[in-house]
Amino acid sequence: MSDTNGTMSGGAGNGDPALARFSINQMTVKQLGLPALVKGCTELGVPAVGLWREPVQTYGVAAAARLVRDAGLAVTSLCRGGFFTAVDPGERARALDDNRAAIEEAATLGTGTLVLVSGGLPPGSGDLAGARERIADALAELAPYAAERGVRLAIEPLHPMYASDRCVVSTLDQALELAGRFPAEQVGVVIDTYHLWWDDRLAQGIARAGAEGRIHSFQLADWVTPLPEGVLNGRGQIGDGCVDMRWFRQRVDAATATPLPIEVELFNEALWARDGLEVLRETALRFVQHTF
Amino acid sequence: MSDTNGTMSGGAGNGDPALARFSINQMTVKQLGLPALVKGCTELGVPAVGLWREPVQTYGVAAAARLVRDAGLAVTSLCRGGFFTAVDPGERARALDDNRAAIEEAATLGTGTLVLVSGGLPPGSGDLAGARERIADALAELAPYAAERGVRLAIEPLHPMYASDRCVVSTLDQALELAGRFPAEQVGVVIDTYHLWWDDRLAQGIARAGAEGRIHSFQLADWVTPLPEGVLNGRGQIGDGCVDMRWFRQRVDAATATPLPIEVELFNEALWARDGLEVLRETALRFVQHTF
Repeated sequence: MSDTNGTMSGGAGNGDPALARFSINQMTVKQLGLPALVKGCTELGVPAVGLWREPVQTYGVAAAARLVRDAGLAVTSLCRGGFFTAVDPGERARALDDNRAAIEEAATLGTGTLVLVSGGLPPGSGDLAGARERIADALAELAPYAAERGVRLAIEPLHPMYASDRCVVSTLDQALELAGRFPAEQVGVVIDTYHLWWDDRLAQGIARAGAEGRIHSFQLADWVTPLPEGVLNGRGQIGDGCVDMRWFRQRVDAATATPLPIEVELFNEALWARDGLEVLRETALRFVQHTF
Repeated sequence: MSDTNGTMSGGAGNGDPALARFSINQMTVKQLGLPALVKGCTELGVPAVGLWREPVQTYGVAAAARLVRDAGLAVTSLCRGGFFTAVDPGERARALDDNRAAIEEAATLGTGTLVLVSGGLPPGSGDLAGARERIADALAELAPYAAERGVRLAIEPLHPMYASDRCVVSTLDQALELAGRFPAEQVGVVIDTYHLWWDDRLAQGIARAGAEGRIHSFQLADWVTPLPEGVLNGRGQIGDGCVDMRWFRQRVDAATATPLPIEVELFNEALWARDGLEVLRETALRFVQHTF
């Protein structure tokens, strides 16, 4: 779309229809405070944001909800709940309490989607299957609670390089297997390009997720190497890596009846070191250029 | 077995029957020159080594072959051929030439197995499927050439975190799909715990690989976090991470008619900084303790 729209010549602008799909995840420009983020979105014509619990809590959940609502911004997701894999009963109870709080926050913010990072292996354990079952147990407790508040849970499969310490759900197929135990309006999945791009079973997984009505969130980040130490904060700006964003968008669009909002969620030290509004503009432009 | 064998009290020793399965991959103790490695193996009762092309070439291929043969050591594999994914015809021809040389070296060294790291995405490409087809094309050229020299090609699926820059074959299923286009005595797979441990389709993949007679190499390394920058040299010593080595060994044993040798292949800066013979002893001990 950028090729045919004059407003794109100097950057993504209000006029580009592709921007109607764009949502900026707060973490991408975490150097911006919430008011600056909201102002930047309004000026650029970015219609939606994905929020994170910690900065929202710092600002105040009710105040944050008012700020984005008054600006007319949609909240496409809240990140994140999860970390369900502990064996210790006290730790499990605390995790469930924390997730109930996250569900309340999502409802207050007016988003229908809470993203879940399910948790890694407990210390000393190598039991992936057991950890996945504990995730299912937690979902069984939380999904009805969330549904009563108008919030859907979205299981995010994380790249297998995070399987031991962050998330034992490593593929879309695994996430769908877990989600499939619950009604689609209660539990679905996140399609995040960064985590899933390498998987040759992806096309059929996306089709299945769409057919089941379980694509509750769609996020973009590019894959660039070398990976940094700890492999957390090396997600590439859209277009800088090897992920075919257009392929993903077309597959998701083909699998869903209504076009979904698309979040760009980048954890990237180099982007965080730059001016936040400049990064926001660049990200909107890259989104339009590489996704449509 | 370590619990019932007196020779293990102070370290892995000649008497432990589990050691009969052990092969030390040269890269694990790359600080040792080949003569020191061979001497250490002889003294400890380690019956086999996995070799790498570069240090063998430095020593001289024929001389290396004589050294290990005279010491009575088996050579369980040569690492590595591969890097088949280039599009440029000249680059492809050079890769094939280099792999033919690797096959000759494997034959000279008396090993029946050449390990293949298949290659990542060419610069600017996001076409995983195309890259995998170019691997199949290369295998079609090389497999008969290798078979004539008594060498089997072993496709190593690498962890998905290497999919862009080292190997677009990321799962055992993918490796078996590629290998399955060729006779099992020509093309098989490597089962490496470091790359495969996270995959919930692994048990059936190992069973299938064994039933097809395609487990041409079995390698161990443990998974530890945080991963280092570049994610190459952070493989954990056996027992230091979350991989259940006994599970792997039992699955592979159940899938194969004859017990296979088991290589320990660690890329680990901390191990490389230590005395090589001490690391060799420790690795043999860990192998016996955690694999049997």
